Amino acid sequence: MRDRMAVELSNLGNIGMTPGGGTNRVAYTEAFFKGRNYVQSVMEQVGLNTKVDAVGNLYGTTREGAGKKILIGSHLDTVPNGGIYDGALGVFAGIECIRRLREEGYPLIHPIEVVGFIEEEGNAVGGTFGSRCMCGQEIGAKEKSSMAAVRLTEEDVLSSRCDPNDFLCYLEMHIEQGGVLDKERLSIGAVEGIVAIIRFYATVNGQSNHAGTTPMYLRNDAMVKSCEIIQRLVQLVTAYDPSMVCTVGEFQIPYGAVNVIPGQAKFLIEMRYKNLEGMKEVIGQLQKEYAEPTLQLRQFLNQDRTLMDPRLTEAVEAVCQAQKIPYKRMYSGAGHDAINTARIMPTGMFFIPSKDGISHSAQEYSSAKDMAQGVAVLAELVKKIDRSEVL
Amino acid sequence: MRDRMAVELSNLGNIGMTPGGGTNRVAYTEAFFKGRNYVQSVMEQVGLNTKVDAVGNLYGTTREGAGKKILIGSHLDTVPNGGIYDGALGVFAGIECIRRLREEGYPLIHPIEVVGFIEEEGNAVGGTFGSRCMCGQEIGAKEKSSMAAVRLTEEDVLSSRCDPNDFLCYLEMHIEQGGVLDKERLSIGAVEGIVAIIRFYATVNGQSNHAGTTPMYLRNDAMVKSCEIIQRLVQLVTAYDPSMVCTVGEFQIPYGAVNVIPGQAKFLIEMRYKNLEGMKEVIGQLQKEYAEPTLQLRQFLNQDRTLMDPRLTEAVEAVCQAQKIPYKRMYSGAGHDAINTARIMPTGMFFIPSKDGISHSAQEYSSAKDMAQGVAVLAELVKKIDRSEVL
Repeated sequence: MRDRMAVELSNLGNIGMTPGGGTNRVAYTEAFFKGRNYVQSVMEQVGLNTKVDAVGNLYGTTREGAGKKILIGSHLDTVPNGGIYDGALGVFAGIECIRRLREEGYPLIHPIEVVGFIEEEGNAVGGTFGSRCMCGQEIGAKEKSSMAAVRLTEEDVLSSRCDPNDFLCYLEMHIEQGGVLDKERLSIGAVEGIVAIIRFYATVNGQSNHAGTTPMYLRNDAMVKSCEIIQRLVQLVTAYDPSMVCTVGEFQIPYGAVNVIPGQAKFLIEMRYKNLEGMKEVIGQLQKEYAEPTLQLRQFLNQDRTLMDPRLTEAVEAVCQAQKIPYKRMYSGAGHDAINTARIMPTGMFFIPSKDGISHSAQEYSSAKDMAQGVAVLAELVKKIDRSEVL
Repeated sequence: MRDRMAVELSNLGNIGMTPGGGTNRVAYTEAFFKGRNYVQSVMEQVGLNTKVDAVGNLYGTTREGAGKKILIGSHLDTVPNGGIYDGALGVFAGIECIRRLREEGYPLIHPIEVVGFIEEEGNAVGGTFGSRCMCGQEIGAKEKSSMAAVRLTEEDVLSSRCDPNDFLCYLEMHIEQGGVLDKERLSIGAVEGIVAIIRFYATVNGQSNHAGTTPMYLRNDAMVKSCEIIQRLVQLVTAYDPSMVCTVGEFQIPYGAVNVIPGQAKFLIEMRYKNLEGMKEVIGQLQKEYAEPTLQLRQFLNQDRTLMDPRLTEAVEAVCQAQKIPYKRMYSGAGHDAINTARIMPTGMFFIPSKDGISHSAQEYSSAKDMAQGVAVLAELVKKIDRSEVL
């Protein structure tokens, strides 16, 4: 049974695989469609009723059960040169879960619907586009213009919207994409919520000057000052809470030259944490210590956290405890389709370990054992929900 | 007399002046040639024999005196949107010196030749190109290809070469282009030498990773590590000697993105000091503390210092002492035409203050009083040399 799912994951991963470079199954490319067709064929072999909606999300539903559906899934697209587990695992886990319940002789009360979302990675239109369409969210003007390039209309977006009343809940099993479970040798991460994110354009102002004739004590060097500010930010973040993170992923010296003391430096700050308040406190302290015009901050993203349904998080924990599987509660530092489903239905999510925390890379890896344990947790969780013991 | 020179400087500065933007008299442009023609006309009014050599250097020689010449000058080109003092001051100071000696009734034993070099700033062919041609230095292949664009031939370069035996010495009065004299309220900087310069390509290697899912304690962030390394370099330089400087003028994160922990950062390090050994000691210490592959350094410039003739440095000091003008010995942190003349004849250089250390900018400013004091020092220096009291 472990092998069956691993083989399917590997088959899908080979579609779009480049030698040594990882898997290229960016949404709306030929490789993506070929991959989705493969998953649809697996669903049909399992006897599911399948359909593809107008924006390209794939659904497969059991004939067993009646009434509200238990929705299980994740996304089928990859980043360019990505791994074979990110997304696809959660779709195959849904299919495997159905096979497992049948093999156990478990009689489904509710139907299970497996979903393979399109364009979670945001390389064609925008991040989590497929699940946003299903959840009936507004699509921005910039994304609408990107839609034309992949031959989508606003009509397609509207017709892909689901009726939330058709669903009991959405469940997503995903690789962690971080190194916490691997490092702490845990098998399951019971996701409480998805972190809040804030982003800033930072400008540090100094005084441009001749790099040869200006002694160190007469300098107001924006590069050196930036180093001090970034190190202080890291210090404040680390001291606040070990689960808060900050990143400076882009940095430039405008009009920089080897023999000119930088008069200005520009960089991006991103912070993620389980709530906005903690991050605002930290950034406020930094701004207090480095006032304008030395440090100018302009916020360009203020995205609040998304809470998973606490009954589902607790149910994941209960299953792990019963099966003696080592787990921890955690926040997801990355965004997922579950952010969108959480707006319209009870949503639960859990992680399995990523080796060395690597994802979005050919080196992405989760062991067959960890995947099988994940499916075992998922199957027990589905039975509890199906028997109305959770929601 | 002060006014005469200030008016001429201002007249020249107005040629190529843009509203609010500074003076644009880049070598080989129309504005440059117009400016040089103006200086030539001033030389002729003063009764000098003038000539322009094949690469564009301007010479004006007194009819008084015989035998070896005392060469005085600097350059007539500016950086784009530069100031009116950098370079031009040293040429007008030579002319003013001649007028002053005549007004004093001083009988010149040796002729004075005033030179206005072309292309010191290196915006057309290469830094100090004009004086390198005069001094018979080899021109590199890359510069030879730039010469074509300004209609110069190798023949022009060769024919611009001077005979060192024609000269007693070269004297250059220049604005400091740094803030030391202004800050310390000194009027003259007696230049001992021009600093050595070393430059490195620095690469800091970390591990690229997801900015949301990787906790701070599991990161190997090349940006944060670079901040630490740059700050440590500044600390080592400052502790070594207050006259050593280091600058990181260019910095980039290759393939940087707001939500990716930088796996690599690349930047340039420049250091300047009165000798190479001191800098090698500091950079060696840094490399010891941050070994490869964390910090990879590849040197791309190793330029030794240039010493001025110590007899001339001492003569400048002696004049300042006699005239009770506050001065200090110092190294020039910037390169000058004097680097080239020093290879073929005794060379002396001194600075007057730059307000707030600003140069290469419309804000560049030296006071009329400081300029007049500079000319007074120059005139006394010339008399000593002319009477063979120095060399």
